[in-house]
Amino acid sequence: MGYELSKENIAKGSNLICVETAGHEGVELVADWLVRDMEAVFGQKPQIYVVTAAGADTVSGKLPIICASADRGELAAKLGESGVIDLARISGKRECYIFKATDKALYIIGSDKRGTIYGMLHLSELIGVSPLSDWMDIRPVRKDSVTITEEDDMISKEPSVKYRGFFINDEWPAFGNWCNKRFGGFNAKCYAHVFELLLRLKGNYMWPAMWSSIFPDDGPGLASAELADKLGVVMGMSHHEPCLRQGEEYKYLRGPQSIYGDAWDFRKNKEGITRFWEDGLKRGGHLENVITVGMRGEFDSTVLGKEATLGDNIELIRDVLKTQNELIRKYVNEDLTRVPRMIALYKEVEAFYYGDDTYKGLQGEPELDGVTLMLCDDNFGNLRTVPSVEERDHNGGFGMYYHMDYHGWPISHEWVNSNYLPKIWEQMTAAYEFGIRELWIVNVGDIFTNEYPLSFFLDLAYDYEKWGASNLDAPAEYTKGFVRTQFQGLSDQTRTTVEELLAGYTKIASVRRPEAMNVDVYDPVWYGETDDLLDKCDEYMTAAEKIYKETGDYPFYELVYYPLMANLNIQKMWLYTGLNRYLADLSAADAAADYAGRVDDCLKRDSEIIDELHTIHDGMWYGMGMSKHIGFKYWCEEECAYPVLSTVRRPDKPRILTCIPGTDRHTEGNFWTKSNLVLDTFLRPDAKEGTIRLYSTGNGSMEYVIEGDTDAFDISSLKGEIRCGEYEDIEIRLRTGAGAKAASEADESGCRTYVLHINSPKDHDQDKSVKLEAEIRVPVNTKDYSNLPEGTFVWCGIDKEGQSSPHYTVLTDEKCKPMGYISMEAAHFADSHRVGEAGFTEINGYGRTLSGMKVFPVTDSYAPGNDAPYLDYSVYMEDDGEYDVDVYVTPANPAYKNNLLRYGIGVTGSDVQYVNTVASDYAVGDDKDEWKQGVLDNIRICSSIHGFKAGLNTLRIYACDPGLVLQKIVIYKKNERPAKSYLGPKETYRRQIQ
Amino acid sequence: MGYELSKENIAKGSNLICVETAGHEGVELVADWLVRDMEAVFGQKPQIYVVTAAGADTVSGKLPIICASADRGELAAKLGESGVIDLARISGKRECYIFKATDKALYIIGSDKRGTIYGMLHLSELIGVSPLSDWMDIRPVRKDSVTITEEDDMISKEPSVKYRGFFINDEWPAFGNWCNKRFGGFNAKCYAHVFELLLRLKGNYMWPAMWSSIFPDDGPGLASAELADKLGVVMGMSHHEPCLRQGEEYKYLRGPQSIYGDAWDFRKNKEGITRFWEDGLKRGGHLENVITVGMRGEFDSTVLGKEATLGDNIELIRDVLKTQNELIRKYVNEDLTRVPRMIALYKEVEAFYYGDDTYKGLQGEPELDGVTLMLCDDNFGNLRTVPSVEERDHNGGFGMYYHMDYHGWPISHEWVNSNYLPKIWEQMTAAYEFGIRELWIVNVGDIFTNEYPLSFFLDLAYDYEKWGASNLDAPAEYTKGFVRTQFQGLSDQTRTTVEELLAGYTKIASVRRPEAMNVDVYDPVWYGETDDLLDKCDEYMTAAEKIYKETGDYPFYELVYYPLMANLNIQKMWLYTGLNRYLADLSAADAAADYAGRVDDCLKRDSEIIDELHTIHDGMWYGMGMSKHIGFKYWCEEECAYPVLSTVRRPDKPRILTCIPGTDRHTEGNFWTKSNLVLDTFLRPDAKEGTIRLYSTGNGSMEYVIEGDTDAFDISSLKGEIRCGEYEDIEIRLRTGAGAKAASEADESGCRTYVLHINSPKDHDQDKSVKLEAEIRVPVNTKDYSNLPEGTFVWCGIDKEGQSSPHYTVLTDEKCKPMGYISMEAAHFADSHRVGEAGFTEINGYGRTLSGMKVFPVTDSYAPGNDAPYLDYSVYMEDDGEYDVDVYVTPANPAYKNNLLRYGIGVTGSDVQYVNTVASDYAVGDDKDEWKQGVLDNIRICSSIHGFKAGLNTLRIYACDPGLVLQKIVIYKKNERPAKSYLGPKETYRRQIQ
Repeated sequence: MGYELSKENIAKGSNLICVETAGHEGVELVADWLVRDMEAVFGQKPQIYVVTAAGADTVSGKLPIICASADRGELAAKLGESGVIDLARISGKRECYIFKATDKALYIIGSDKRGTIYGMLHLSELIGVSPLSDWMDIRPVRKDSVTITEEDDMISKEPSVKYRGFFINDEWPAFGNWCNKRFGGFNAKCYAHVFELLLRLKGNYMWPAMWSSIFPDDGPGLASAELADKLGVVMGMSHHEPCLRQGEEYKYLRGPQSIYGDAWDFRKNKEGITRFWEDGLKRGGHLENVITVGMRGEFDSTVLGKEATLGDNIELIRDVLKTQNELIRKYVNEDLTRVPRMIALYKEVEAFYYGDDTYKGLQGEPELDGVTLMLCDDNFGNLRTVPSVEERDHNGGFGMYYHMDYHGWPISHEWVNSNYLPKIWEQMTAAYEFGIRELWIVNVGDIFTNEYPLSFFLDLAYDYEKWGASNLDAPAEYTKGFVRTQFQGLSDQTRTTVEELLAGYTKIASVRRPEAMNVDVYDPVWYGETDDLLDKCDEYMTAAEKIYKETGDYPFYELVYYPLMANLNIQKMWLYTGLNRYLADLSAADAAADYAGRVDDCLKRDSEIIDELHTIHDGMWYGMGMSKHIGFKYWCEEECAYPVLSTVRRPDKPRILTCIPGTDRHTEGNFWTKSNLVLDTFLRPDAKEGTIRLYSTGNGSMEYVIEGDTDAFDISSLKGEIRCGEYEDIEIRLRTGAGAKAASEADESGCRTYVLHINSPKDHDQDKSVKLEAEIRVPVNTKDYSNLPEGTFVWCGIDKEGQSSPHYTVLTDEKCKPMGYISMEAAHFADSHRVGEAGFTEINGYGRTLSGMKVFPVTDSYAPGNDAPYLDYSVYMEDDGEYDVDVYVTPANPAYKNNLLRYGIGVTGSDVQYVNTVASDYAVGDDKDEWKQGVLDNIRICSSIHGFKAGLNTLRIYACDPGLVLQKIVIYKKNERPAKSYLGPKETYRRQIQ
Repeated sequence: MGYELSKENIAKGSNLICVETAGHEGVELVADWLVRDMEAVFGQKPQIYVVTAAGADTVSGKLPIICASADRGELAAKLGESGVIDLARISGKRECYIFKATDKALYIIGSDKRGTIYGMLHLSELIGVSPLSDWMDIRPVRKDSVTITEEDDMISKEPSVKYRGFFINDEWPAFGNWCNKRFGGFNAKCYAHVFELLLRLKGNYMWPAMWSSIFPDDGPGLASAELADKLGVVMGMSHHEPCLRQGEEYKYLRGPQSIYGDAWDFRKNKEGITRFWEDGLKRGGHLENVITVGMRGEFDSTVLGKEATLGDNIELIRDVLKTQNELIRKYVNEDLTRVPRMIALYKEVEAFYYGDDTYKGLQGEPELDGVTLMLCDDNFGNLRTVPSVEERDHNGGFGMYYHMDYHGWPISHEWVNSNYLPKIWEQMTAAYEFGIRELWIVNVGDIFTNEYPLSFFLDLAYDYEKWGASNLDAPAEYTKGFVRTQFQGLSDQTRTTVEELLAGYTKIASVRRPEAMNVDVYDPVWYGETDDLLDKCDEYMTAAEKIYKETGDYPFYELVYYPLMANLNIQKMWLYTGLNRYLADLSAADAAADYAGRVDDCLKRDSEIIDELHTIHDGMWYGMGMSKHIGFKYWCEEECAYPVLSTVRRPDKPRILTCIPGTDRHTEGNFWTKSNLVLDTFLRPDAKEGTIRLYSTGNGSMEYVIEGDTDAFDISSLKGEIRCGEYEDIEIRLRTGAGAKAASEADESGCRTYVLHINSPKDHDQDKSVKLEAEIRVPVNTKDYSNLPEGTFVWCGIDKEGQSSPHYTVLTDEKCKPMGYISMEAAHFADSHRVGEAGFTEINGYGRTLSGMKVFPVTDSYAPGNDAPYLDYSVYMEDDGEYDVDVYVTPANPAYKNNLLRYGIGVTGSDVQYVNTVASDYAVGDDKDEWKQGVLDNIRICSSIHGFKAGLNTLRIYACDPGLVLQKIVIYKKNERPAKSYLGPKETYRRQIQ
């Protein structure tokens, strides 16, 4: 019935792990991990049996787990010959394994060392061991037995991407302190855990930490490097560390008397630098590496000064490559084609590769034959230039250096995870589709808290067929599996909540990263975006708290609770700061003070969370919370500042401030400044309830009565008293049947505008200076939209509510006309036009609001004109006229050097306009403001002007250049932009047939 | 030897006051005041003797004070006939009196009622009684005797302006509460004091309070109006209250059943309105009035709606005038020429007067024959349009409605006095020179605290020859006399201080009125303007406190101490708020908290001062401090708010913030953000000392050492420790003899730039994250300017200090180049060119900084071109190039409808540019932003671009249109505007020969 692994078998000396004497040493090392895993599951420790191929037969009665590799030893061949396995299925392939169970034995036969190891770790997963088990001390669910059946038999695939790994970076203060305390340094004891994590996540490649350590020397000595080699971990070094030499090394070794000279300058100190590289290759060239070539300046800076021309730089790099290739031939392998090499086209090096009109770049340079060209994202998860069709056949292939952590301009992100799977999926599937398949490396900072996106990244690289572009639901599906793997002990229902928590907090953090949060990001009032986000944060935090209380589970704490709490607490803190400042400016002294108190609580909570992280689980994460993350003023933490809080004294007299929530409209309604407010809720035909908020902003209590057209509404309170420092929300519902009456009384615009007066009671106060006299207009939309097509967005705004009160100018800002806009989620199109297999497709959960619309296949371009996929939006207008159409798109970078990332747009019947979402001189990089705004806000808003006619219109948006993702569309009368906010106006009324 | 008034004489029944039975009743009433005054001075109460002309001889042995009027009774004529006085000298004149002393009698013979009264009050002044004695309860210095000699004999002049008075306005809450508590209403008991004040100040005309009272009905009844008439106070009503009817009256009398109808609408309710006016004239037309004619809307608003054309409005006013003149003929005097009438060309009425291309205005309208055309200022003390030469001969003459108080847009000023004599002098002398001599009325709000400028205003109107345009030193001279009159008991030295206090606080308040102060007015750091003003405030407040403590004198409290303290305390509060916010934003948590505490202290002090005012002097001023004055958000107090204060937590680590005082330049000097600072003090050849400020902005103490070119300087401290929350100023002086050494080492620009490093001590901290590493460049100007002409302004700025540190961009803002500008006080010209008697003349103390330069005679215009007065400024530049020249001028309004208020400007040898200081569509009024900015800031800054050559240049500024007053000139390289501040950069180095 299959192969049985069980406590009982192990106790009897069965289920022993059989490895071959002549096999890979790494396989024997990994057998130890398997022992650990099986003991954890079954409570019994199995034995390892190291045998010759011949000797393997002697354990046949012991239900052996036979681990062998086709490329070393004789056991695999012997099994093949005996017909137990079909070795041909894997021979010559990369990193594959046969996994085959019989009643008597389990065969794990790799095509090579990593193949066998992945097969062995596959078994671990099958018995319920998480790939994060070692790294995070995740204990599997105890079982008595697991049966492996024929259904589990498999021949694994070749990994989709050849080199798949991560980069520990920006390791101070978090990883560095953690590592020093736990392991005494960046040594092999530490890397043993890192390598195990990498391999269990099906990676095979890594760059070590580099800011204060020397990987090939701190093992001690080569210990770390040799361990990597044994385990099949291919080492690289960071993009600016050529020839197996770390940047820190030169800092230590240089000097006036040094044999390496005293200048990181290939022009002035060629001999010293060459010798430095030579000794690096001599030391580590015999191990499995992807050797970085090329050269950059020290500390991640430019290689030549500002005076140097592009030509100087290109020439220099060409010389460098020549020298490095010669050294590699001499010390690593005469056949350069057999030495994996990589050059990073990162920051300024990208320009050296492409050259310009004057200087031919390094593209096509013979010294780059066989060298993998490593491209990169913009440090914020957006790919930069991708290979054009012609470039894609470069014989060294392409790599991608991606960032889940970044220490640099405009604002670093290196504290807790703020990476969101749908974005990673969208970008890395594009990378793959554009032919970037040789090497994927991701900067994971301190690793800790990035385990979730890192797992996804490496699984995507390993099995693109499963998680790639063809699986639109990959992020959610992956999250489901991830939660199931890590939290096997939780109920299905709880696991579903945990999925929501992971997706939820990462979405919030990706909309604005915690380090980039500040008081000016979200508007404190407009469109309720602050309130909504606070609600969301509270919902997630409460749920996380509940699960953690119930389970007391460290992995839950580490994988979900901590990054969620840490992250959302900071989001809340800044939202509270915004409310504090807003309310203080309104003299709502008590409310402001309340929010100031909440900010203080958040600051306290921030310390508590980090202290807690540093002590739980026997302090195993000490150090990991140390990165600064509050109030960045520069790109780095320097001069970072806690929130500036506002306090104000209450005005001397009683006052009531009448506010319309979701807007900044407010009035104290006194005699002279009397300004009309408009409660525009009921302009939406589907509105249920509107709210008026009354704040006490003065000293002393104050009474109010609501008068006027109160008959039309059910009003939660018609009179009352607001006590000093408090507020009351007056809920207003259209009275049943009031709609018909309103319709009969509507004006020519189809509205019936009721007026409510919020007044002081007549006998309230003889001193006219504390009189309350606020007037609120409540227009009710009585128009009949029942003949409009399903999905039509309807203009509900009105123009003429800002009327003057008898003598005095009304303060209603022209730009804040009630509902003076249409806002549509991009996914709420009325019709979608495909061209062949190409068409806009929704990426669920993507972006800042509902989702994203992207054209698949992602590599295609469409000539402006007839043959492009498009989306149609149905829009019903009240007035003919010119309108601005703001299109919210993902802050993608143009795919190619042409700097084009366009969409076509037009109202059907009019000409199509082509809008480039970036400026013609757009560039990624420090001091590039357009790019900066995009990555900070995680959006780019593009605008064009179109004529709409009164009645039904179709707004059509065409695909054009690859990479565009539509998120939201906002339409408003020309130059009458709705009030500014971070997320823009919420979606407006859309006709839906019930 | 003269006429002796003495205690002894009075005790003997001498010095009796003799008035004529057949004389003016008012003279008899004023005799009572004289009794009161003499009793206060001599401690004995003299008798009044009411006699017939014949009976006057009977008192010849009693050293009588004989008071009579030429226009009533027989006594004056009898004295004339007897040769005692020369009646011809005054007969037929307005308001004159003969004042003549003999050994036996004192003769005070008026040409008319007011002449006699002024003469009697002149005697009061001679014996040392202040004109404010009744109003403010100022007790004279006690004397035993005063001798009036022949030298005191005089024949008084006819007053310069015919009607001179004030308007009690915006009387709630201050005057209203005061009046109700003290007198039980706006009744004759109250007005008795107001009239006495007016007459003692040599006024003769007033408008009563109008916002909640009816002067002709609240006396009770006509009591107030009849009292005015008796005393010779000519009553008017406010500019929008025609036919002796107050606005409040219509509010009370109107109604559906009212005989006056229910609409303030001359079109729809002509009959009712006409009747309303008719009854007003019937009631009060027999008293001495200047009757307002014309019509405005209710409550100081427009008369017709927005739809009405200018033509509609003009036609309406024409009808109104016709009706009113008919009524006046009927009920007051058939000979209209004998009825003083006034129409205000105020706000929109001005447009009705002038008309436009389509509609002929009211100018030249026969119904306006003999009607005084009342012009006005812009509510902020700047005259609006003045009569052109052709208009000046209008047969009713012109009046001026001036404001020392205003309740309206953009921000009201009605709390404590914020009027500055030099400005009043400059504007009202212009009014007079332009022919506005029939009527001057000033809105004094609650009167209280405006006594000082009001006295000046009325004295200027009474005796223009003495205080007018020919007396450039009038404001200072007047202040000296005012202080002498009010504070006879103080020493000369103290009185000099009091003069400084009066001039000082009113200047500060006029630079920015307290109601218009807020946190954004003065820059907290640039050019030290906040520090300077704080020092000034402290100096004045300390001096006032000292004098008040020494004297305990109520009049000092009321006239000086209270308005000064109240005013400057508010100024300080906002300056502290600015520092609080600035420092909180820098995370200088403790310094910010310190300033927040000071703001709280100021708020407390504000309440204390007002409470004190309301209780001192037996509570006689209760109510007068009630006007709101903090944090106006609209033009009125509604929704006004206390300062919003900022608090911030200290950053977790020790930090030192290095600042350059007088700039916003600062750095924490850490590794990544390292930015160079420049201490530019020594670019001024006359600089003595520079300062670097080190703030502790973090948690914990931190040490520093100063290294680098320390040999060049005497530095107050080369190392130290800044304790948590504290700061240290490092004072830096060029070492003696260092100048020569610097010169020998100077670069081509003539500078020797030293570098100081403010570092952590080497052994301070192993954690590089708290390293201090600030670099300060200290350029020393070594150039020799000894050959430059006296008074030359020298460009000391340098361009190239913003160099990069090795790897990282320096933050020095291009626009803040060290000393990258020349700033000159307008009075510091090198040469002045006069044309005939016309030329620029300095008005001492005028404006925001040093003084103002204005052309006298003030009415002349100069055609752009050759024949205009000009000022030459000598300017030495380092570089050829284009420069912006900002000219700071008074926010005057153009004199005429042409909207021209130009100056000519040019570097000699280049073309002259004519700069209009106002836009071509400039207008005064609500919502007019250009005007608003001018009156709030009390400055207008105009700019033009000029080529300067390296070396000496002459910048010439020409007079052009009347009204221009130059205050300051700032020159900088084109588009390199110096950092923004309220007052602009301080004056820069000027070559002065010692």
